[in-house]
Amino acid sequence: MSYGYWKKNIHLRESNFSVFFRKNPFNSGYAVCSGLEFIIDYLNSLKFSDSDIKYLKSLKSQNGSQLFENKFLQFLKQFKFSCDVDAIEEGRIIFSNEPIINVKGPIYQCQLVESAIINIFNFNTLIATKASRMKYSAKSDPILEFGLRRAQGIDGSLSASRASYIGGCSHTSNVLAGKIFNIPVSGTHSHSWVLAFDNELESFRNYADIMPDNSVLLVDTFNTMEGINNAIVVAKELEKLGKKLLGIRIDSGDLAYLSKKARTKLDKEGLDYVSIVASNDLDEFLVESLKNQKAKISIWGIGTKLVTAYDNPSLGAVYKLTALKKQGNKWEKKIKLSEQKIKINNPGINNVMRFRNEKKFLGDMIYEKNSKIQKLKMIDPNDSTRKKVFNKNYIIENLLIPIFKKGKLTYKIPSIEHIKKKLSVDLDLLDNSHKRLNNPHTYPVGIEENLFLEKQKMILKLRK
Amino acid sequence: MSYGYWKKNIHLRESNFSVFFRKNPFNSGYAVCSGLEFIIDYLNSLKFSDSDIKYLKSLKSQNGSQLFENKFLQFLKQFKFSCDVDAIEEGRIIFSNEPIINVKGPIYQCQLVESAIINIFNFNTLIATKASRMKYSAKSDPILEFGLRRAQGIDGSLSASRASYIGGCSHTSNVLAGKIFNIPVSGTHSHSWVLAFDNELESFRNYADIMPDNSVLLVDTFNTMEGINNAIVVAKELEKLGKKLLGIRIDSGDLAYLSKKARTKLDKEGLDYVSIVASNDLDEFLVESLKNQKAKISIWGIGTKLVTAYDNPSLGAVYKLTALKKQGNKWEKKIKLSEQKIKINNPGINNVMRFRNEKKFLGDMIYEKNSKIQKLKMIDPNDSTRKKVFNKNYIIENLLIPIFKKGKLTYKIPSIEHIKKKLSVDLDLLDNSHKRLNNPHTYPVGIEENLFLEKQKMILKLRK
Repeated sequence: MSYGYWKKNIHLRESNFSVFFRKNPFNSGYAVCSGLEFIIDYLNSLKFSDSDIKYLKSLKSQNGSQLFENKFLQFLKQFKFSCDVDAIEEGRIIFSNEPIINVKGPIYQCQLVESAIINIFNFNTLIATKASRMKYSAKSDPILEFGLRRAQGIDGSLSASRASYIGGCSHTSNVLAGKIFNIPVSGTHSHSWVLAFDNELESFRNYADIMPDNSVLLVDTFNTMEGINNAIVVAKELEKLGKKLLGIRIDSGDLAYLSKKARTKLDKEGLDYVSIVASNDLDEFLVESLKNQKAKISIWGIGTKLVTAYDNPSLGAVYKLTALKKQGNKWEKKIKLSEQKIKINNPGINNVMRFRNEKKFLGDMIYEKNSKIQKLKMIDPNDSTRKKVFNKNYIIENLLIPIFKKGKLTYKIPSIEHIKKKLSVDLDLLDNSHKRLNNPHTYPVGIEENLFLEKQKMILKLRK
Repeated sequence: MSYGYWKKNIHLRESNFSVFFRKNPFNSGYAVCSGLEFIIDYLNSLKFSDSDIKYLKSLKSQNGSQLFENKFLQFLKQFKFSCDVDAIEEGRIIFSNEPIINVKGPIYQCQLVESAIINIFNFNTLIATKASRMKYSAKSDPILEFGLRRAQGIDGSLSASRASYIGGCSHTSNVLAGKIFNIPVSGTHSHSWVLAFDNELESFRNYADIMPDNSVLLVDTFNTMEGINNAIVVAKELEKLGKKLLGIRIDSGDLAYLSKKARTKLDKEGLDYVSIVASNDLDEFLVESLKNQKAKISIWGIGTKLVTAYDNPSLGAVYKLTALKKQGNKWEKKIKLSEQKIKINNPGINNVMRFRNEKKFLGDMIYEKNSKIQKLKMIDPNDSTRKKVFNKNYIIENLLIPIFKKGKLTYKIPSIEHIKKKLSVDLDLLDNSHKRLNNPHTYPVGIEENLFLEKQKMILKLRK
C-alpha cells in the first residue's frame, strides 16, 4: 500500500490512524495498557537495511517482472520516521472502543508501521490484563510467572514476562527477562533435581545445602505426603543451622486437599513460617476456587494459562484510518462501514477524557481532540438512549499524551516499577464491580455528543 | 539447578533428557514436528556473555549475599555445549508420548537448555499442526497466512509464519518472515486503501493501475455488493489492457452467501478466472463448514486462529530426566511418578520405530535405543490388554536421528521446501481416519514389551 500511495504521489498526505480494540479480553471489565516501550523501540529503530532493499527488489509480480520500482526502493532507503504519536501510557486501565494510540503523519509511513504496532500492543496488553486478573483472584498473595517453556516463542515469553510483571506478578522464572527488563527473578527446582539423587530426602538435603536461604522444595516427585515429611526433616535440619526453609511446592494432584494436609503437618512441627507454593496449569478461576475452598496456598506459580492468555489468546486490536488531509489542508474524517456494527471505527482524531472524583473513576468520554466542547455530555454507542452528563468539578484527565513529535521521541520512558505503580493507582480508583472475574459491571465509555451525532450522520450518508 | 549440580560436583554426570507431549493438540489425530532448526540455532550460539555473567553475579540470595559463587560464574564463562542430541526431523508426523528430542550429556548442560528447547518445540509444532488441519479442511485450495498483527509478539509471528508454511500455507503476508525464511509472500490491500481515495471505485482503479498483474480487491469497506460491482468494472477495464484481475477479498458478513453472490455476478460477466479470497477469523472448522455450504471461496486468508493456535494455545510438551550414569559408568533409568498417570515419563534412552507398508503407516513403537529386540511387540500404555505384533517384513524406520554429536552439529539442515515435502509424504502415508478434524481414529503408538514391563515394575516399586 505504501508503494501504491507513492506511485499515486499521495504518499505525503497527512493521515491519522487509531488503534482500538472492540471487546475487552476474557470478558473482563477492563484491560491494562501495555507494550508502548516496545513500540517506541520499534519506531526509533525503523529503517530499511541494504539486505531489506535487496530482498524487496527480488520480489516478483505475477508476470515475472520486478514488483517494486527501483526509485521506490531508493526512497525507502532514505526512510526516516517522521510521524506524531499520541498514546495512553503503559499501566493505565483502558476499555474497548477507546483510541489507545494515534499515529499522525505521511500516509505511507502510518501504513508501514501498522502491523508491528498492533502486534506489540495486542499481545502485551492481553498478558498484562490476564496477570491483573490473576492478581485480583490471588488477593494479597504473591504470584510468580513461570511461563517460559509454554510461551509462544522466545520473544513471546520475554514480552509475556514483562507484561505479567506490570500486570501483577512479583517475579519471573525467566532469567533473561529478569536481566533485560529489570524484573526480580525467582524459581524452584524441578523433578529432575530429585531424580538426580538416590532418593528424595538426599536431594532435598543437597538443595538446602547449596541454597540454605532460598530453598523451596518440590514435594510431588513420588508421593506428595512423603515429600512433605522429607521437607519437614530438612526444615528441622536447617533450623539447627539457624536457617529457615522458605517453602514447599506442590505441582500436581488435588491442590486444596494437599495444601491443607501440608499446612497441618508443617504447623504441627512449628514450621508455620514455611510457605506453600502451588503450580499446575493455574488460572484466575482456579485460584479463586482454591481460595474459596480455603486451600492453604500462600504463593502461586502461574505459567501456561497466563503467558499464552489461554482462554482468549488474542486481543484483536485494529488500526484504522480515521482522518486524512486532502487538498486545502483540511482534515476530512474517515469511517469504515461494515456488515458488522462492531467493526465501524470512530471518525476523526480523538482523545479520551477520564472523569473521576477523589475516590473513583466515573466514566470515559471519547471526543474530538481539537474541538471545543461546550457540554461534558456523552452517549453510549451501543445504546443511544443512554446518556451521561459529567460535572465540570470532577477531576479530568486526558488519557492520550504526546509520545513522538514529527518522529522525535518527546516522551520520557518510565521505569517498569513506575508503570506497575501507575496500574496500582488506577486499579484502586476502579470500582470493584468492574474487577470481578465473571459478569463485571460495564464501565461507562461514551462518545461526546457532537462526535456521536457526526458519526451517525456519516454512517447514514454512506448507507444511503 | 546447574549451580547445585556443580556445587555437589556431580555436574559432569552423563544424563539423558527427553522431550515429549502428553496429548495431541486440538484433539487432533497427530501433530507435525517443527522447530528443530531454531533449536539448532539456539544450541549452536549458546554462551554466557560478559553482561550475562555480570547480571548473574548481581543476583542476591534472600539473606543479601551473592547467589552464585564467582568460581561457578567463571565456569559458566567457559561454557561450551557438548551434548549429543537426537531428534525427529521437522515435517514428520508425530504422536503424543513419543520421545521427540533426546539430549544426552553432562547433567548441568542438559538442564540449562531445557526451557529454550521446550519453548521452541512447543510453539512451532503447535502452529505447524494447526496449519496442517487448516490445509486439510481447505483441500486443494491455497491458504494464506495473514497472522502478523494478532500473533503473540514479533518473534511469535515470525516463528508462526515459518511453522504455518511448513504445515500447509502457501504464502505469508509477513514480509520479514518471507525474507528470513525464504517463504513466498502475498497480501492484499486493506480498508484504509479504499478510504484514502474519494470513493471505492477510484481506489480500486488506482490499485489495479499500480498492481495490474497482482490485484486482489477488498470489496467490503462500505457495502459488499456494491464493492463487487466496482471490482467488476475494474476487471473489465483491466481486460481492455490485456490484464486479468486476480481476485476479490471478502472480510466480513456471511461468507457463504456473499461468496455465492459474488461468484454468480463475476461469472455472468465472464470473469470466472477471478478468485474469491475470504478472511475474517477463519479456522479449520469454519473452512470445513463453508465448504459444506458450497461457498464459492477459492483462497483462504487465515490469521488469528492459526498463529495463536486459538483453541489450544499451548502444546504442553515436557522435558524429563530419563536416565543417569552414576558410579561404574552404568546407565540407570529414571522415572517420575505423579498423582496423575499422564505425567509419568517413559524411562531410559529411547527411540521410535515406525512400521509401514507401501501404502500407509501402521504403528509406532517406543523402544530402548540400545537394547536387543527379539520380538516386534508393543503394548498400549493406556490399556495394557491391547497389544500389537508387527511383521518383520514391514518397512521400518527409526524416527530419532543424530543431530549433535558431543556438541558438534552433524545434521545437515534441510531447506524449508524439503521439510514441506517431507510432511506431504508423511500425510499421504497417514490414513484419512487419523486426519479428520473431529474424533479422529487413534493411531497405534505403543511401548515395546520389555520396556513396558520394566516401566511397570519401576512404578510398582516406587509406589510400594
